[in-house]
Amino acid sequence: MASSSLLCLTICSLVLFNVCFAQLEQGFQLRPTHERRRGQQERWVSECQIERLNAAEPDRKIESEAGVTEIWDENDEQFQCAGVTAARHTIERKGLLLPAYANAPRLLYVVQGRGIQGQAMPGCPETFRSESESQRRDIPRDEHQKVRRIREGDIVAVPTGVTDWIYNDGDSQLILVQIIDVGNDANQLDQNMRKFYLAGNPQQELQGQRELQSQSERQRQSQGRSSRGSQQDNAGSVLSGFDERILADAFNIDTNLAQKLQNRNDRRGIIVQVREELRVVVPESRQEEEEREREKGKRLPINGIEETFCTARMTQNIADPKHADVYTPRGGRISHVNAVNLPILQHLQLSAVYGMLYRNTVPSPLYNQNSNSIVYIIRGDGRMQVVGDNGESVYNGQVREGQIIVVPQNYVVIHKAGEKGLEFIVFKTHEVAKISPLAGRTSVLRAMPVEVLMNSYQISREDARRLKEGRQDVTA
Amino acid sequence: MASSSLLCLTICSLVLFNVCFAQLEQGFQLRPTHERRRGQQERWVSECQIERLNAAEPDRKIESEAGVTEIWDENDEQFQCAGVTAARHTIERKGLLLPAYANAPRLLYVVQGRGIQGQAMPGCPETFRSESESQRRDIPRDEHQKVRRIREGDIVAVPTGVTDWIYNDGDSQLILVQIIDVGNDANQLDQNMRKFYLAGNPQQELQGQRELQSQSERQRQSQGRSSRGSQQDNAGSVLSGFDERILADAFNIDTNLAQKLQNRNDRRGIIVQVREELRVVVPESRQEEEEREREKGKRLPINGIEETFCTARMTQNIADPKHADVYTPRGGRISHVNAVNLPILQHLQLSAVYGMLYRNTVPSPLYNQNSNSIVYIIRGDGRMQVVGDNGESVYNGQVREGQIIVVPQNYVVIHKAGEKGLEFIVFKTHEVAKISPLAGRTSVLRAMPVEVLMNSYQISREDARRLKEGRQDVTA
Amino acid sequence: MASSSLLCLTICSLVLFNVCFAQLEQGFQLRPTHERRRGQQERWVSECQIERLNAAEPDRKIESEAGVTEIWDENDEQFQCAGVTAARHTIERKGLLLPAYANAPRLLYVVQGRGIQGQAMPGCPETFRSESESQRRDIPRDEHQKVRRIREGDIVAVPTGVTDWIYNDGDSQLILVQIIDVGNDANQLDQNMRKFYLAGNPQQELQGQRELQSQSERQRQSQGRSSRGSQQDNAGSVLSGFDERILADAFNIDTNLAQKLQNRNDRRGIIVQVREELRVVVPESRQEEEEREREKGKRLPINGIEETFCTARMTQNIADPKHADVYTPRGGRISHVNAVNLPILQHLQLSAVYGMLYRNTVPSPLYNQNSNSIVYIIRGDGRMQVVGDNGESVYNGQVREGQIIVVPQNYVVIHKAGEKGLEFIVFKTHEVAKISPLAGRTSVLRAMPVEVLMNSYQISREDARRLKEGRQDVTA
Repeated sequence: MASSSLLCLTICSLVLFNVCFAQLEQGFQLRPTHERRRGQQERWVSECQIERLNAAEPDRKIESEAGVTEIWDENDEQFQCAGVTAARHTIERKGLLLPAYANAPRLLYVVQGRGIQGQAMPGCPETFRSESESQRRDIPRDEHQKVRRIREGDIVAVPTGVTDWIYNDGDSQLILVQIIDVGNDANQLDQNMRKFYLAGNPQQELQGQRELQSQSERQRQSQGRSSRGSQQDNAGSVLSGFDERILADAFNIDTNLAQKLQNRNDRRGIIVQVREELRVVVPESRQEEEEREREKGKRLPINGIEETFCTARMTQNIADPKHADVYTPRGGRISHVNAVNLPILQHLQLSAVYGMLYRNTVPSPLYNQNSNSIVYIIRGDGRMQVVGDNGESVYNGQVREGQIIVVPQNYVVIHKAGEKGLEFIVFKTHEVAKISPLAGRTSVLRAMPVEVLMNSYQISREDARRLKEGRQDVTA
Repeated sequence: MASSSLLCLTICSLVLFNVCFAQLEQGFQLRPTHERRRGQQERWVSECQIERLNAAEPDRKIESEAGVTEIWDENDEQFQCAGVTAARHTIERKGLLLPAYANAPRLLYVVQGRGIQGQAMPGCPETFRSESESQRRDIPRDEHQKVRRIREGDIVAVPTGVTDWIYNDGDSQLILVQIIDVGNDANQLDQNMRKFYLAGNPQQELQGQRELQSQSERQRQSQGRSSRGSQQDNAGSVLSGFDERILADAFNIDTNLAQKLQNRNDRRGIIVQVREELRVVVPESRQEEEEREREKGKRLPINGIEETFCTARMTQNIADPKHADVYTPRGGRISHVNAVNLPILQHLQLSAVYGMLYRNTVPSPLYNQNSNSIVYIIRGDGRMQVVGDNGESVYNGQVREGQIIVVPQNYVVIHKAGEKGLEFIVFKTHEVAKISPLAGRTSVLRAMPVEVLMNSYQISREDARRLKEGRQDVTA
Repeated sequence: MASSSLLCLTICSLVLFNVCFAQLEQGFQLRPTHERRRGQQERWVSECQIERLNAAEPDRKIESEAGVTEIWDENDEQFQCAGVTAARHTIERKGLLLPAYANAPRLLYVVQGRGIQGQAMPGCPETFRSESESQRRDIPRDEHQKVRRIREGDIVAVPTGVTDWIYNDGDSQLILVQIIDVGNDANQLDQNMRKFYLAGNPQQELQGQRELQSQSERQRQSQGRSSRGSQQDNAGSVLSGFDERILADAFNIDTNLAQKLQNRNDRRGIIVQVREELRVVVPESRQEEEEREREKGKRLPINGIEETFCTARMTQNIADPKHADVYTPRGGRISHVNAVNLPILQHLQLSAVYGMLYRNTVPSPLYNQNSNSIVYIIRGDGRMQVVGDNGESVYNGQVREGQIIVVPQNYVVIHKAGEKGLEFIVFKTHEVAKISPLAGRTSVLRAMPVEVLMNSYQISREDARRLKEGRQDVTA
């Protein structure tokens, strides 16, 4: 029989997590902040009438000069239920993902490679300067805001409306998977994902392709799939839409340069090739910096009161084995990045869990109490089964590298790593997502009296005890 | 003329409440917490086009082995406007309501009887142990999480996704009325109420029967009322949907026991008969415990910073005369349970008001400033009139024991107790719901200058004074 | 070439604002308050499919005895996207705007004139007394709640469900422009604006005229534009809907006076003529009071912990040159009122920006990171261009006195003052709205390394430097 050696995994995970929690709740959960309620009750049409989940591959692929962007189908009901859109960027060496912002907060996970990222925070000082006594003489004089190194295993948070750019200065492809939480409160527009590029001529297909239900119903009869942008023949950067005269005025430049800003004939797409190396001011040692930040993070009071947006940490490595929150030699390891260890996530209302399950491991069945889960399979494969409120099985099948599957809030999931193990990242739509395991030391069943189990399941006292304590030991 | 002796009731109530408030606002209302806004503006179709409210009886009745569950019609527009669903459980002596969780926070009110309730908090320790030196030798060795005694008049809070079970160990029926706040932010699925049972074979009718408007429009022409679950012939527990093999793996049990967990042939429903007495570890004296908890509650700093989910109080008695917040010998009494005296409600964004009006009492007309009200008539009868924004009367009639009527936010309501008096519980969709009375000492009219009243209503100075001070005295 | 002398304006503005910010973020942005997420994902139909914005004039005009109310079309897609409705009251001398409350928070801006406003806060004490030793012998004995003086340039905040009245005691018309944030979380009804009048016989057209999409689709075929209230022939105050007998009981008055309260034959509308002067207790010196309050405001700890609703400041002058946050002699001035300097706005989740641009000034292009903007042109004219996510220009034209235009979140806007200058007030749907300028000292472009700009726009190092520093100097 398969290894259920992960019991300990989940068990310990939860124990650890909850010891931590007992203290966190204080600051977090019961604090009488003035929580506001929905503004609207127009629960008109629900979009979680999930009858079948998908282990989904990307729906469309957009080629740029120095990379490829793949986007998952926004009209897949599982993404609509979770309120997110997902994309994957593959940036070639010396590729630059052009500066852009979106109408919702974003979480990125670095699947492979390394690079640098800049996030422009209006009003924050330009603290990276290359001027006189710089030891790196090769960098021309410049000053700009903080630039962050990113590498495989990093979670990167980008707030709503914040412009970022990414450059691959590594030796291999830089692959990023990203979710945009359009259902987030910070998005005051509609549920269509909108990406605003400050430069370049972004391809039409990059914008949200969300079918509007009312539209689509009407149109389905006539012309098939409609896309929001399809009325327009060419998309452009936000600057391309302005009259060049007013643009020149506003930037205090000549119209010649204004035309260049609008880049109307740019055919490079959103990932462009940097001819020489991109030289920017950035601290040398990624390792040291990270360690330092991590330490700093630990010393921060939990409420992050010393942080401001200008100095906020935006990245944290989640895949590094030495930061595992849960580990068992036979089962695998699990790490969390949430509002507790990366305070900016409080603001984004998102968090992430990384898992590396060794082959044939079966963690405890569990459900998410307060969030949806968007699971991306980084490497390996496995089997997943997801069950809904009526006991209906909405997914029962394989998952493999590069796929995304959504597990809706409260749905119960069991997964089992395949022969090659299963490495995954889970994006969660709550800043301190909580799970509720059904088996193991911290489970719902264990919390209940034996006689409640006996009567609920009509089983003997021995069976009830076995249920409560079955996953006590580490091996299967 | 009828007794308007309740003036004092409302008056005092508000005075008391607001003295309290003046201090609470500090912590609560003006604190610069980072409140977030709506994520969507798709106010597509409003569902508060209330033309008529109902004093509604339950819509359907589901019989179980040891009790009955009655559910109000989710498609009644007043429930859709308030964003809640309502149900009533009648649990026979020795009946056990099976463990389940829901996709939204719940408030229960114990209409009659007594029992015990367990809420499973994953990761919290099993603090109730019956082992060695237990004085109650009759309880078999076991350890489990906190079990709470509940009794008539208790408000019980259950957070989103938290599994609970209830057992009637009293001498009579245990009757509970429950609202599930599907419009709550904590529900990240759609507006359909979803109850996830961990055991048993719940009847199909228990699940949300919300008609989807778009569906329903299509279907109305053809086959009449559609129900969400109607495609499936049988519902089941969340465990019933899994393959028994993977379930056995995950729980580290044999497939035989896994089959028992799935309970596929269980015909007992959701309230099952316990053959002998259910023996669990639970403190003896309900009275003492409650007093102690209440005291503890009072000593807690207002922000509840010492509480964690593990030790949070989840119940408070609201009907006990000795805890009345407002009392007048000829009018009746009123009590509040909100985020101030039961801090977990801050998290649930719900609160409750209990009222016991003596016969013929007419409290001040009032409206809810910041919440909807769901009024359940516990005993007695009375008359209510509710008026909307255009002065349209949306309800004018009798209410009686066992009925629910919704009073939407900002709608003005007058009620009058009947010959037998009127006992009611009001569930409110805000953690510190505020009312605005139109008459009496704390009313809107009294707050305004006499000359504003004179000119607004075109009345004399004497009439304006009478308006402001008419309900000063206690008798009518 | 036109004056781009405003560079400094925006620049300084942001510098100032952000210095302030660096400290505020601490308290505001990263604080781990327990922020809640959406309750629903039914992003069913988006309403921000903006293809064209409008510089809109009011849609309908309602005459009252002593003034006029003009209302903008709720069905204009730009208002639906922003989630607000807008109206303008012109109150003649000795006109009284009758007491009313709404189902959402409101912000008012006093365009012209002066007057007094009362907001009734149930449970707060009647602190304005005219009794014995009043120096103003002309005011009859009375006591009531705080009355505020308002004058040109004031922002006035009114929370959801709070009843207010306004009286023009000045020498000229009192003109107020008001937005009601129906998309706010505090509105638990639907997205229709609802105004509840406590007196008078409000005209039917005052109520929200929002077309319901589903209804409207059906009805469009048959009878053209439908309005919510059109089924009813006459609207009335909330008191008008009650039976006079029960009303008399509830207020402890005779039915004769109850009938007067219902005012069924009142034809004065919502702004009524006060025959003599309205005499209420109100402090003499507006100037002194304001100064005092402003000082008090400054000494308040940022979290406003000393304030309660009863004593909360509800107004602040935004147009007074001496309170300008940003000022340049050749460009103009800008002031902010947000949760930082008017703490009640934390609760309302709204803020405002006032701008006075001298002729031909062109501020930096900018976008709103976290809010929608509702721009009302107070005086003068100018040109605006607004560009969306695909580079589509959704507005490019003139704006002039009395018009409103919505700039959706993240859309980029450039404006240029006309020959007469441009004076405007911007209402924002976030309590601490943040902008992101594209040019100038605090801009996104300046935050980025020179080589990122070079490669993004395919421009030379010199051009990139010019872009980053072009708006450094103050004159054009």
